[in-house]
Formats: sequence, C-alpha cells, structure tokens
Amino acid sequence: MTRRGHVSLVGAGPGDPGLLTRKAAIALKRADLVLYDALVDERVVALARRAQRFYVGKRAGRHALTQEEIQAVLVGQARRGRRVVRLKGGDPFVFGRGGEEAQALARAGIAYDVIPGVSSAIAAPASAGIPLTHRDHASAFLVVSGHDQEVFAAAIGALKPDAITIVIMMGFGRRQAIARQLLDAGWQTTTPAAIVANGTLPSQDTWRGTLEQVASGEAAIETDGPAVIVVGAVAALNLAGAALAASGLESAPADQASQTQQQVHFEDVRWQHTRH
Amino acid sequence: MTRRGHVSLVGAGPGDPGLLTRKAAIALKRADLVLYDALVDERVVALARRAQRFYVGKRAGRHALTQEEIQAVLVGQARRGRRVVRLKGGDPFVFGRGGEEAQALARAGIAYDVIPGVSSAIAAPASAGIPLTHRDHASAFLVVSGHDQEVFAAAIGALKPDAITIVIMMGFGRRQAIARQLLDAGWQTTTPAAIVANGTLPSQDTWRGTLEQVASGEAAIETDGPAVIVVGAVAALNLAGAALAASGLESAPADQASQTQQQVHFEDVRWQHTRH
Repeated sequence: MTRRGHVSLVGAGPGDPGLLTRKAAIALKRADLVLYDALVDERVVALARRAQRFYVGKRAGRHALTQEEIQAVLVGQARRGRRVVRLKGGDPFVFGRGGEEAQALARAGIAYDVIPGVSSAIAAPASAGIPLTHRDHASAFLVVSGHDQEVFAAAIGALKPDAITIVIMMGFGRRQAIARQLLDAGWQTTTPAAIVANGTLPSQDTWRGTLEQVASGEAAIETDGPAVIVVGAVAALNLAGAALAASGLESAPADQASQTQQQVHFEDVRWQHTRH
Repeated sequence: MTRRGHVSLVGAGPGDPGLLTRKAAIALKRADLVLYDALVDERVVALARRAQRFYVGKRAGRHALTQEEIQAVLVGQARRGRRVVRLKGGDPFVFGRGGEEAQALARAGIAYDVIPGVSSAIAAPASAGIPLTHRDHASAFLVVSGHDQEVFAAAIGALKPDAITIVIMMGFGRRQAIARQLLDAGWQTTTPAAIVANGTLPSQDTWRGTLEQVASGEAAIETDGPAVIVVGAVAALNLAGAALAASGLESAPADQASQTQQQVHFEDVRWQHTRH
C-alpha cells in the first residue's frame, strides 16, 4: 500500500517541554522521521517514539546538515511516503528558515503544514517577568535577529531611538556591539535592558540593568544556551511571580472524575519534573 | 485544611484548541475557578471540568467585568485558597493586560505564575502562509495594536516607512484609517498587505492585496472575529501548504506501544475535529 508522504514544520516552543502544543505532540507521535535542531528538548524529541530521529543542528560550531541538504531530505523522504516532522525551537516561522523550507516543499509539490509554536521572543521575557506590552510602558515591540551586524543595523536604522521595545534574538555573543550600535543610533544610556538566558528552563538566568552596562561589558551573565535581549522600559519590570505552580501541581489533589485525564496529567507532571 | 491559593495567567493560544500548550491544559484541569475572555474556544474552557467558569470578556460591546473587578476577583479568590486560572486569548503578556494583572497579584502578595501561549501575532499569519521573517524578505517585525489611533500613530511614527514588517492586532475595524496613516507616513501604495480573519480556525479567511487597496476600502473581507493585518513584503507570500495534516491524523495507524498515549491521542484528535 502506498501512502502519501507529508511534512509538518513544527514549533517545539521556547525550551520548557510543557510549552509544547497538543498539535505538535500529535504530529511527533505520528512521525516516521524527525529532523530536529539544537535547543529542542530531548523529552520533546522522545515523543516521536515510532520515528527515526536525526539531529541536524550545529555540532562543534558546524551544521550537521546544510539547509539545502535538510530541504532535500524533507522532499525526498516525503516522496517515499513518510510522515516527516521538521522540529524547530520556538516557532518555525520566526527566524527558523521555515519559510524557505515551506517554499522548497511547495516547489516540489509535497503536502505539508505548519504547526506554530510558542516563540521564545515572547515567552523568554515573560518567564523572566517582562511583559512585552503594558499600558503604562509599551504599546508595540520589535523582534529582530542580532546574529548579523548588517541586518541588525538595517532594522535599528529604521527605528526612532527609545520609542519601541526591542527583542533581540540570537544576539548574546554580540551583545556589547549590539548595545553600542543602539547607543550610537541615539538610544539613551539609561534605557533599561535585560538578558534572559535559557528562558523557561530550570537553568533560566536573568540579568537586568541599562543599555550602557551591556555596551561596556558589565552585564554579568554567561551562558552557552539561547538568550534573548530586551531593550526598553518593560525590561525593568519583574513580574515573574512565585515559582509555586510546579509544586502546586505536584501536591494538588487527584481529580477522580476521569482516569484517562489523570494519567495524562501525571505523565505531564512527571515530564516537567525529571531532567535527563 | 487550608490550602494556599494561586493564580495562573494562561495563554489559550490563537484560536485552534490544538495549539493549547500542555502546561495550560494542566492548569485548567486543576483549576477551581476560570475567568476567560472572548476569543477563547469553549473546548479549551471545558478542560477545566472541576472549575466554576466565568466569562469576563465583552458582551454586546461592554465588558462583563471591568479590569479592576477582574483583578479584585483574582486576588480575592486566591486569598480564599482557590486555584484560579485567568485564561486569555493568545499570549497573556501580548496586549492582554496580563502585565497589569501580574502587578496587582504581586502587590497583594498572591502566588501566581504566567503560562505563555502561542500568540496570534505570529500564528495567524503563519496559518495563512505568511512567515514573519524570511531571509529574502524580512529580518525583523513589529507587533502593534491598531485599536487606538494615537497609540498606533506613535508606534508608526517611530518607524521608517517600508523598512520593517508590521503586524497589527485589533485593528480590523480601523483598517482603512490605519492604512491611510501608513500611506501618510510615507509607505508605498504598492506595499503588500494581508488581512487574516479567524486565523488558525476552520473559519479562517485571508485577503491579500496592497496597502492602497486597504486604504481605499477595497479589501474584500468581513468578519466579526479576530483579525490580524500584516504589512510588508512577506504579506505577499502564501506558504500555508495543503490542509492534509488533519486527514492524515485521522487515518494514520494506531500506535500500539502505549495505551495511555493512545487515549491522549484520540482525545486530542477528536477534539480537533468536532465543532459544537
């Protein structure tokens, strides 16, 4: 029996496996093949129990597969009738090259769909208590990649200084240069800035200070993991709340109404509390 | 036995109940009380089977409860030892007044947490095949509310015309005025624009054209539901793929490995395919 192949471009969310969506979990459980990136939690990848799983992200600074090779594998495997999941950190259409992959699939006539994920652009700041919008502080926010100096400069050049909250992704390694670019563009030295490393994960770490401090190398935070930089008034807020939710979930009384739901429940809770 | 109350500010996602996160589902299953807004799917609210559920959104153009009343209920009920979920469309910290609610809870000394959701700012365009970033077209995007003319004007005034993709939320009713504001600010008449109504839902509808057409009232799309406006080169893309994922989920072979997982699975699939 031949089966028509299919590719799902799936967002794995910002880090915490509990922030995976139901649709993403279903796609993983159904998958024959999963191609996943760095920053995707292994517990999320493990949901694809029937699947061959391939890590295609960076290893020792080099991509395991080039973008062209990834796209060729997606197309080729779907043509062989397989259900393929392309699993990406955050959302597949926010700095994930998901747009290029979708175009390659469309060109090849492969059936595909896109399953959005919780973007770390929003969730990492939220996890550190920073709401990107707030009636008193911010009515708009810009999401930009800090990875490439010219691309970043072009985006910043299109903005009036100090007017809009900026969320900079993939900019941690260049944080001093990024802050200097903003200061050179006219942003005030005292503009609040925050750096959230490993947002939504137990290893989350947050630094708060000013743009000037980031520029001068005084932002005392180190990480090998993902980090998001927030610049603007909201970066000074700290509304993360108490970390009581997890223990609350553990100690809450059992719901007797549904055995199935209860199993789901405990599975999910365990999943949140074990680290491999 | 007294129990410490707790409030979770929970994102319900962009519309499709399948885009709810696992953490949100757990919080709902545990809740004693749920306060939910318009735009939250009733199947999501129904997950809170043990809870009293109150609709606190707009009814006939008026809010059922004021923001101050909502905050008072959150604080008061948590003080009585209840587990309260404040359920909001999209993400609680993106135009959801979640920041204000978190501040009220912090001031009152209530334990709370924030569970991010998939924002319709990203997912509605994605569902219409519009990636907000793309190597060839866009390296940054601005998310802004179109609800208030002055607030919108301030955000747009901080931007160089035509330089950055804009995602306008809550602007459908003012779409002509919004487009005119952008043209007046120097945006080109031929700038691609798209309007996505009811993004991620079966009733989703997308219109694509130019900024000029939106300004002149030629955008042939009507909705009472939520709508997102995208302005910029990516708005011309149409990478939504084929809608084969749903039927694929229905017909795929059962996974025999785990009865529990299978129950979760079928529950989720059924949930996606029934409309009440």
